[in-house]
Amino acid sequence: MGTISEKIFSRASGQDAKADDFVMAKVDYAMAHDGTSILAVRAFKEMGVRSVWDPSRIVIPFDHLVPANNESTASLQFDIRKWISEQGIEHFYDVGNGICHQVLPEQGFALPGKLIVGADSHSCTYGAFGAFGTGVGATDMAEIFAAGELWFKVPQTIKVTCQGSLGQYITPKDLTLHIVGKVGADGATYKAMEFYGQTISELSMSGRMTLCNMAIEMGAKAGIVPADKTTFDYLRGRAVEGYEPVYADEDASYVKEFIINVSDLEPQVALPHQVDNVVGISEVPQTKVDQVFIGTCTNGRLEDLDLAAQVLKDEKVAVRTIIIPASREVMKEASMNGTLAILLEAGATIGMPGCGPCLGGHMGVIAKDEVCLSTANRNFRGRMGAGGLIYLVSPATAAASAINGYITDPREI
Amino acid sequence: MGTISEKIFSRASGQDAKADDFVMAKVDYAMAHDGTSILAVRAFKEMGVRSVWDPSRIVIPFDHLVPANNESTASLQFDIRKWISEQGIEHFYDVGNGICHQVLPEQGFALPGKLIVGADSHSCTYGAFGAFGTGVGATDMAEIFAAGELWFKVPQTIKVTCQGSLGQYITPKDLTLHIVGKVGADGATYKAMEFYGQTISELSMSGRMTLCNMAIEMGAKAGIVPADKTTFDYLRGRAVEGYEPVYADEDASYVKEFIINVSDLEPQVALPHQVDNVVGISEVPQTKVDQVFIGTCTNGRLEDLDLAAQVLKDEKVAVRTIIIPASREVMKEASMNGTLAILLEAGATIGMPGCGPCLGGHMGVIAKDEVCLSTANRNFRGRMGAGGLIYLVSPATAAASAINGYITDPREI
Repeated sequence: MGTISEKIFSRASGQDAKADDFVMAKVDYAMAHDGTSILAVRAFKEMGVRSVWDPSRIVIPFDHLVPANNESTASLQFDIRKWISEQGIEHFYDVGNGICHQVLPEQGFALPGKLIVGADSHSCTYGAFGAFGTGVGATDMAEIFAAGELWFKVPQTIKVTCQGSLGQYITPKDLTLHIVGKVGADGATYKAMEFYGQTISELSMSGRMTLCNMAIEMGAKAGIVPADKTTFDYLRGRAVEGYEPVYADEDASYVKEFIINVSDLEPQVALPHQVDNVVGISEVPQTKVDQVFIGTCTNGRLEDLDLAAQVLKDEKVAVRTIIIPASREVMKEASMNGTLAILLEAGATIGMPGCGPCLGGHMGVIAKDEVCLSTANRNFRGRMGAGGLIYLVSPATAAASAINGYITDPREI
Repeated sequence: MGTISEKIFSRASGQDAKADDFVMAKVDYAMAHDGTSILAVRAFKEMGVRSVWDPSRIVIPFDHLVPANNESTASLQFDIRKWISEQGIEHFYDVGNGICHQVLPEQGFALPGKLIVGADSHSCTYGAFGAFGTGVGATDMAEIFAAGELWFKVPQTIKVTCQGSLGQYITPKDLTLHIVGKVGADGATYKAMEFYGQTISELSMSGRMTLCNMAIEMGAKAGIVPADKTTFDYLRGRAVEGYEPVYADEDASYVKEFIINVSDLEPQVALPHQVDNVVGISEVPQTKVDQVFIGTCTNGRLEDLDLAAQVLKDEKVAVRTIIIPASREVMKEASMNGTLAILLEAGATIGMPGCGPCLGGHMGVIAKDEVCLSTANRNFRGRMGAGGLIYLVSPATAAASAINGYITDPREI
């Protein structure tokens, strides 16, 4: 009798791990990106350890400030590349490969039953594959670099069951925002979430990643979709090693349960400046938009770009529209299937795979009074420029709004 | 009896203009980008003039810091957009449309016989169309915004005749670098250059733009290729208005003549830190490369990307390789003809149309000891990061070098 998290921590700690237990758990894959690896490597060096525990289990994608936006960044990235080479880290993905949370699944590191720890809060994305994916700080990551294991408190689990099918232009992002609105930004603090039900079963891997990606926006340590045929199909030919799917027992104990019915769900919007300030689009007053941004680890996948293209085909955007594929792979596929051409023809612009404007760090920063409609996962004040207003929506809503220049229900285009 | 420049200035000034005359000339099109429009608009406002002379003859593409890299840039771009809207400027190309010197030709503003002035030094690019294209400072541009005319000293002209055909993988960029090496970085100061000969006739518009783009790197006010069938073919369906090609008279007076034979030309490399420090690739010792950059107003066109794809097909890059299409149009075409997919498959990354890393202002900055192989037009110390080393080459040489990780003759791949 155990939840998915209890079972994964039992395996990883070699003991019968129950919620609230403190366990030392072996990490299957450790991830740090350009932003956090700088700090993790610094801490690692201070520990005086010569070599990382296992250079085949550390994955470092450069995605946050790519390509280097100034000399300081260039110099820090230079240093990390040197360390990666010295340590023989086998899985380094330089500038332009894409966002860590897209690269790890694509490259087959996100596997059912694994414990995957990333020095990035959205590492919960890997839960889409039935893994326990979670984020830690850079010093914790230094510990993992050194020893391959870390202390964890095994989380209690919230069960979310979603009923019904998503309608046309009602996307996994709408489902996700709706759940975030229901659970609240602190409604799952230090809990794991398990997602069940027809709606979840029907989600593609892309949709599941959107959902699990935002588990941290409810405070959760992890958001997990049990592996099924959709998972196994995605992993065929990708998985870097064998894996053993883990499922919750019938009598597993949940701290809370939510039942969500999506049958009448309309497009959802998270209003500034709180991610759980979620309303149906019919409740949003006419809101002029200055910038539309489609991309990020939440919604920069092929399915998202294809959806935007479906809305934008034979239309023209009325505002500046920045689209950043989540990875080189996504960009390549979008190029080959005609999606890029449709988006460009509509007047959108396409940027280098990576985090792009999401963090407001080096591109797509908005001015004081500007409104950005974004498919990202955070709309905190100052996230993309002090004073700017960020509304979180699906790629379909973002694309429809780009055409009109104000927030628009994609079903009305 | 007159050069192309004398004839264009005669028409634009309404008087018989000879070299060394000072004339007040009417400008056909005025261009400023995001970087210079900020200064030009500020100066314009200080002049106290209410309205620009002709909102249909001002073209403003945003290309230098796109998308906005920080709050200050975002705020300045916000202000310029407001001014553009207030003044009713008809030709505004926001973030992602591409580099000014690519957008103006594509949109049909670069026309034979016209006087086109840009607040950017590489405005000489428009000479590829038999126009007099030249760069001015932002305060001069404010004058043009106000009155549509400016004082010019009519330049003397240097005649460059190029004989022979370019060999395989010997590109217009190699021809251009070779000419820059021969003429020198100050060899054409305040002169116009006219380009003639079989080699020039055989150049596509793309190649002619590469050549004229670098006229300023020899100090020239303008670099002009007389309009011919290639020009007219390109302009069909693009030209925003009628035009009257202008040709030099048989007895036109040239201050200097160069004759260049390209029959045995090998790939050319401009070594750091001088643009005229040009040698044949066989004279370059093995040089390890950290970053390859293909793009800019010099070499970011479809022909350049296609050439890089030809070299990179079924190969993998060994170093980080950043490719920035010069415009949305170029990106769209490269997406549709399969070039983008080849480049991405080879491991290169593609960025948002614009100036990209060329100016080292917001992306692709290199670290102190790094070497960048670039298809741009400048390799001054500090251009892409203090201490970095920039080598200027063709897209073919850049692509070949990306495969090997060191500077490589594309004919050897």
